[in-house]
Amino acid sequence: MKLLIPGPVTTHPSVRAAMAEDYAPWDNDFRAIYARVYRRLLPIAGGAPDRHAVLPLQGCGHFAVEAAIRTFVPKGAKLLLPMTGAYADRAARLAEEAGRTVVRLPVPARTRTSVEAVTAALEADPAIGHVALVYSETGSGIIHDVPAIAAAVGRLGRRVLVDAVSAFGILPFDISALDMVDAISFTSNKGLEALPGMSFTVAPIERLDACRGNAGSWSLDLSDVYDHQSGAATPGARRNTRSVPGAARFTPPAQVVAALDVALDRYEAVGQAGRLARYTANMRTFYDGIVALGLTPCLPAHVQGPIIVNVAAPADPAWDLQRFVDGLKARGFLISNFYNTPEPSFRVGCIGAIEPADMAAAVRAMDAVLRDMGIKERAGTPS
Amino acid sequence: MKLLIPGPVTTHPSVRAAMAEDYAPWDNDFRAIYARVYRRLLPIAGGAPDRHAVLPLQGCGHFAVEAAIRTFVPKGAKLLLPMTGAYADRAARLAEEAGRTVVRLPVPARTRTSVEAVTAALEADPAIGHVALVYSETGSGIIHDVPAIAAAVGRLGRRVLVDAVSAFGILPFDISALDMVDAISFTSNKGLEALPGMSFTVAPIERLDACRGNAGSWSLDLSDVYDHQSGAATPGARRNTRSVPGAARFTPPAQVVAALDVALDRYEAVGQAGRLARYTANMRTFYDGIVALGLTPCLPAHVQGPIIVNVAAPADPAWDLQRFVDGLKARGFLISNFYNTPEPSFRVGCIGAIEPADMAAAVRAMDAVLRDMGIKERAGTPS
Repeated sequence: MKLLIPGPVTTHPSVRAAMAEDYAPWDNDFRAIYARVYRRLLPIAGGAPDRHAVLPLQGCGHFAVEAAIRTFVPKGAKLLLPMTGAYADRAARLAEEAGRTVVRLPVPARTRTSVEAVTAALEADPAIGHVALVYSETGSGIIHDVPAIAAAVGRLGRRVLVDAVSAFGILPFDISALDMVDAISFTSNKGLEALPGMSFTVAPIERLDACRGNAGSWSLDLSDVYDHQSGAATPGARRNTRSVPGAARFTPPAQVVAALDVALDRYEAVGQAGRLARYTANMRTFYDGIVALGLTPCLPAHVQGPIIVNVAAPADPAWDLQRFVDGLKARGFLISNFYNTPEPSFRVGCIGAIEPADMAAAVRAMDAVLRDMGIKERAGTPS
Repeated sequence: MKLLIPGPVTTHPSVRAAMAEDYAPWDNDFRAIYARVYRRLLPIAGGAPDRHAVLPLQGCGHFAVEAAIRTFVPKGAKLLLPMTGAYADRAARLAEEAGRTVVRLPVPARTRTSVEAVTAALEADPAIGHVALVYSETGSGIIHDVPAIAAAVGRLGRRVLVDAVSAFGILPFDISALDMVDAISFTSNKGLEALPGMSFTVAPIERLDACRGNAGSWSLDLSDVYDHQSGAATPGARRNTRSVPGAARFTPPAQVVAALDVALDRYEAVGQAGRLARYTANMRTFYDGIVALGLTPCLPAHVQGPIIVNVAAPADPAWDLQRFVDGLKARGFLISNFYNTPEPSFRVGCIGAIEPADMAAAVRAMDAVLRDMGIKERAGTPS
């Protein structure tokens, strides 16, 4: 079965095999695995060992996004959020439930966030200290120009949080060149092609020091994650060897960390550019294929990103998402049985251990399933 | 390698094998796995399908403990915490960083929490609404009589949160008979003998409804976990099929859930009483064995619980915990390289897919390593 969902993605058998072991997370043998993962993740974010830290947090990307907001945005402070789709909506909810004030910047459908609009919103409200940006918006499939927006935010003296959950390792990022960025958050899954269960944030050490005490949650406090693994943790933890560089605060999903170490072998063999090239080829093969089938992608080609393609549900009374999903599954392809767009759609991930030939085969399977379902009108309403 | 740590524990190969697969967490095939895990966990807590819910939360036990505190204890409200050891200390920190007021009840070393002391503390302060109890305190190895304390708390009209992270499935618990309990929190690992990465809380549905809005964190809001899986989630989620019973809110570590389903086959074959009997036999074999070696357990036998044995570090200048750990590892046994007791010790877990014969072999290995290290004085100071 090929998973054509935008995460969890299809993984290589060698990556999955690392999951089938028992690990003791504080044992020295495991600490070496964790330290290696740390050293390998940092440069993917463009981090420098003396200036930036990798902060592991068990759980999904949303946990990392909430942790970054809690750690870097003081309680009650204002956060500007370009409303790019379902994942920006979620970031807004995470921030508001944590007691931060969200200023929503509308972003028109099927467009990239405008640097000018962000600049104008910041100039209009000097109390906004941070801007949170979704790099690849799964709700639409659009890649937003985070480096350009961040640079503009930095010129106005404000700071940036980046939700790179579905973008990390795929799209270029250099936190060393973007000193207004407080956090770039991502997970073990998605473009790194490991399994879900761990999230990570790369952040400037200076900012982790400056923001200590903001979080209002021990579990989700990235400054504390930093203090623990840097050895500057609480006196209670210091008395034993649990608090040393590379040590987890709490029992981590050790299997997920070990599998990520294997996945990073495969990542490093091709690098960010190689991974982006394969995913882009996957997306083009799929996008062109469904257009040829008479289906309607939700996005025009010039704003379609390489990570997820949302396709408008056919405007035919015989359309039924679950039947479509089940038909594809019988043919070896698994897509999501829900959608994140305003109008009904189906969503297909172009990431993971899959190739353009898999995408071409998926398009043929879709054609067959649509015929089986008796769908005559394949065009739909882009959302 | 046998893991003799109090978690992550040694697992059965069939459990680990379920980790080495790709899963799509919202696919109907996976929902069936999740629904089965849900149905199987509920009765282990004594829950009734119409009155109690199982709330999954990715992450370790600490995340579940913080989530239970946030969900059921209103911000600023008072929580009584018997200070039983390192894990009670952590619950206090989780509560205080979340803005709850902790009233600490001292518990003398090497004793069980006294029902009378809890009662007196509650009578002295009518503003205390909740009591948080650690069922099995890893910091000491003592089992506290949660059912008896909870009953006393209930008679005073207060409510109870149970940290059963290292006790769940091992020690008896019946939430249906303890209607003052708001939450019993545990993980996929430990006594259930699956892998780490997911935590769970069983809670009364009526209380989840009543406490909506308390959490101050979307990620750690158990009422929202309930609303999502019961289908009563946000309008935004309702428009698609992601929010149906059994659906995860956010991408879960699906491999961990699937492995737990396999582990529950093994659990159900023996039940709580069977698991407690094996672990008790593991503990007795180990406890008697180390006493015979001249080592000093931190606890007298009458308060030693079946889950973890802390052993006082030998009062010999040649003692070195890491050397001891490394020597045991070379002989096939892995113990923790840190300790949670006030005085130096080493800690040995008696849980997981291990038998009394493994514990006896571990004792022999310890004898050999102590000789190799040149340790003459094996007795230590109990903490």
